[in-house]
Amino acid sequence: MAEIRARQALLPQGWASDVTVTIGADGRIAAVTEGAPAPPGAQAVDTLLPAPANLHSHAFQRAMAGLTEARGPDPRDSFWTWRQLMFRFLDRLTPDDVEAIAAFVQMQMLEAGFATNVEFHYLHHRPGGGPYDDPAEMSARIAAAAAATGIGLTLLPVLYRFGGCDGRALGPGQVRFGTTPDSFARLHQGAARALRALPADAVLGAAPHSLRAVAPDDLPRLAALTGGPLHMHLAEQQAEVDEVLAAHGARPVRWLLDTAPPDARWCLIHCTRMTAEETLGLAATGAVAGLCPITEANLGDGIFDGVRWHGADGRWGIGSDSNLRISLAEELRQLDHSQRLRDHSRAALATPGRSTGRMLWDGAARGGAQAAGRPSGAIAPGLWADLVALDRDEADLDGTMGDTTLDAWIFASPGRVADLWAAGRHVVQAGRHRGHDAITDRYRATLRRLREAA
Amino acid sequence: MAEIRARQALLPQGWASDVTVTIGADGRIAAVTEGAPAPPGAQAVDTLLPAPANLHSHAFQRAMAGLTEARGPDPRDSFWTWRQLMFRFLDRLTPDDVEAIAAFVQMQMLEAGFATNVEFHYLHHRPGGGPYDDPAEMSARIAAAAAATGIGLTLLPVLYRFGGCDGRALGPGQVRFGTTPDSFARLHQGAARALRALPADAVLGAAPHSLRAVAPDDLPRLAALTGGPLHMHLAEQQAEVDEVLAAHGARPVRWLLDTAPPDARWCLIHCTRMTAEETLGLAATGAVAGLCPITEANLGDGIFDGVRWHGADGRWGIGSDSNLRISLAEELRQLDHSQRLRDHSRAALATPGRSTGRMLWDGAARGGAQAAGRPSGAIAPGLWADLVALDRDEADLDGTMGDTTLDAWIFASPGRVADLWAAGRHVVQAGRHRGHDAITDRYRATLRRLREAA
Repeated sequence: MAEIRARQALLPQGWASDVTVTIGADGRIAAVTEGAPAPPGAQAVDTLLPAPANLHSHAFQRAMAGLTEARGPDPRDSFWTWRQLMFRFLDRLTPDDVEAIAAFVQMQMLEAGFATNVEFHYLHHRPGGGPYDDPAEMSARIAAAAAATGIGLTLLPVLYRFGGCDGRALGPGQVRFGTTPDSFARLHQGAARALRALPADAVLGAAPHSLRAVAPDDLPRLAALTGGPLHMHLAEQQAEVDEVLAAHGARPVRWLLDTAPPDARWCLIHCTRMTAEETLGLAATGAVAGLCPITEANLGDGIFDGVRWHGADGRWGIGSDSNLRISLAEELRQLDHSQRLRDHSRAALATPGRSTGRMLWDGAARGGAQAAGRPSGAIAPGLWADLVALDRDEADLDGTMGDTTLDAWIFASPGRVADLWAAGRHVVQAGRHRGHDAITDRYRATLRRLREAA
Repeated sequence: MAEIRARQALLPQGWASDVTVTIGADGRIAAVTEGAPAPPGAQAVDTLLPAPANLHSHAFQRAMAGLTEARGPDPRDSFWTWRQLMFRFLDRLTPDDVEAIAAFVQMQMLEAGFATNVEFHYLHHRPGGGPYDDPAEMSARIAAAAAATGIGLTLLPVLYRFGGCDGRALGPGQVRFGTTPDSFARLHQGAARALRALPADAVLGAAPHSLRAVAPDDLPRLAALTGGPLHMHLAEQQAEVDEVLAAHGARPVRWLLDTAPPDARWCLIHCTRMTAEETLGLAATGAVAGLCPITEANLGDGIFDGVRWHGADGRWGIGSDSNLRISLAEELRQLDHSQRLRDHSRAALATPGRSTGRMLWDGAARGGAQAAGRPSGAIAPGLWADLVALDRDEADLDGTMGDTTLDAWIFASPGRVADLWAAGRHVVQAGRHRGHDAITDRYRATLRRLREAA
């Protein structure tokens, strides 16, 4: 049992002052009270918020961050060039490397304000493509990283069958990912075993990689296999839209809506290439749009139609995807700024009663929880105690209150957090993860070796 | 005399290892040597770069950062709504306030990697519009802040005559800015006096506010009045383009090219609304495009055509403008990411020999120096010693070298700097400005009072 006392807190009904949050021994919020005297021994914080889940990550890609900004031989140097470099880079990752990188990524997520890592995990096999002795070796390493960092983990083993919509074999750079429906079922079982070592808030789901990489009947098959969340990349790049249109006779979102309509268990990642009609149709399903604004900008994917999606009350959340930069504030700012640049508008996601920052925070917390399959996303009894504290003693936040605290944090500050609890585990204190130095040292040693070999 | 020893340094001819830079007592670079043994007593740094100038700032606007992200009464809540709030806010700023805010802004610039503050300064008068006893009181306060922070200052007093192209009077929110050609000449003389208190690298220029706010013949008049750089807002918002077109019969950039063609003394701020032909025409003049990517995104100005400008070898640099966020890394990233989002491309500003980060750094250093009227922008003898050191001991930069150090710093790191020298003044050490705490405390006290009254 622990108690937190906040000067201001964002509760489901809005901002409240002098709030005490009681965390039970099970990691759930036991009680929330307003206005009563501060209990002795409570941890004093300034601004308390529900900590969002990071709903899309490929942890290992962090090791390539910054290495792919030169110009390749293709004069247009597109996404596909980046993808080739990624395939070469991961040819040499060992399970130890993946564990070290995942721990660093999870630490940076926690220090950025995310309580949960939803890991879209497709790096299953040895270099060359053979299975590890434990087929779920890599899943176990991600779970081990989560045990060390204390982050909430939603693990999504990925089904990755084909190199394209025509059912062609995977390319040489993809052999570590390849799964059949049968091997995927074993992998999913192995991942379930690996998660048993984690606290009770860990979640197992499944992810068909994309419409290019699975068969249409894999979607209901995976939905039947797992009781957890279902994620899939969708409508990220024009080449993908063209390929699905040619193979299936419809653009990806249209095809999905007509053939295998998603429900609230689904999170569709990117959705940067949707028509207005597709945007409205997908928003109406209750599925979450998994937005990765920094990665989508870096890869030139395009701008998600957030204004239309918001107008249709669509669910959405934030993922750091390639983990190029792990910053909740920068992701939210990039999401909103791209809307403004496209529309020549300001504060388009705000409503008269809620500022831009408030709408962004509410959306990311609610949608992230849904996508993670994790009862969380609000400061309310019964939910996991995923909580983040900001400190208005930071000069950038001084003199703000309520919604303007969020606006200043997202738009005018480096996005530091003071404290973070993941399912009640108090893993970030005074801005630093409790294992910061050891995790960083291990990551740096890994990175140097990988980059020197690159 | 001081010596710096860098493991790697970006010299005019490219990256070099084991570089010693000697700074003369006058603040200029006295010598640059490669490969020789490290001199005893030299300051050891990791990666040494020319520190760019921040070419556009309205310091006082920092105090409003984060307060304008709610939704106003106008359903489109545009730039013009933001402008109204700005006018109300600055109604209460005193000279003490402006000095405190300017010092904080300059400190954040230095800690972000900028060596120079080019201040586009139009807050001249008392609330109500009457002059201070010293008409250049506010200029003197900005100079006092620069004396305290050690930043290089290029001060641009602004001529702000009219409320629009039709020559109408300034609105009630603009009375603190108003100048006539006569009062501007006195103000410019007063600013020159104020700068005499600063080291020899301070520069005085002038700035006609915009084509909306001055008469056409003010442009040659200001060019004759000052020997320094000339800056003007240009083609930022559609309403401005429409107004200039209606009043002068041409879009702003076209009108300028035809009527008062700028030369290399000029820096045109924003230029987010140019046709392809205007982009090529303006690039060919040798004038600098003053880009403010974070502010332009926040205000929904639009996306500068950086790919076309680069292709035409146009000069450009970075300004933090509203000072919403003061981060060189984030500005450069936002500039590049907006090109990618518009074009669905990657690394479009890179060339086969230079990465994206390298092109961004070279451009910002060279163009910033030109716009600041400051012999700097490269590590070469005779130039001001405007130098910034990065540290690859940061986990985000580990294992990088040369161009990839810049790529990782811009795209994959929080953008911290280790050390910074402005004209040889070693003002940032181990990431912190030498007056960090005192400057921050004064800013916070100012901010609280201003925001509580707001």
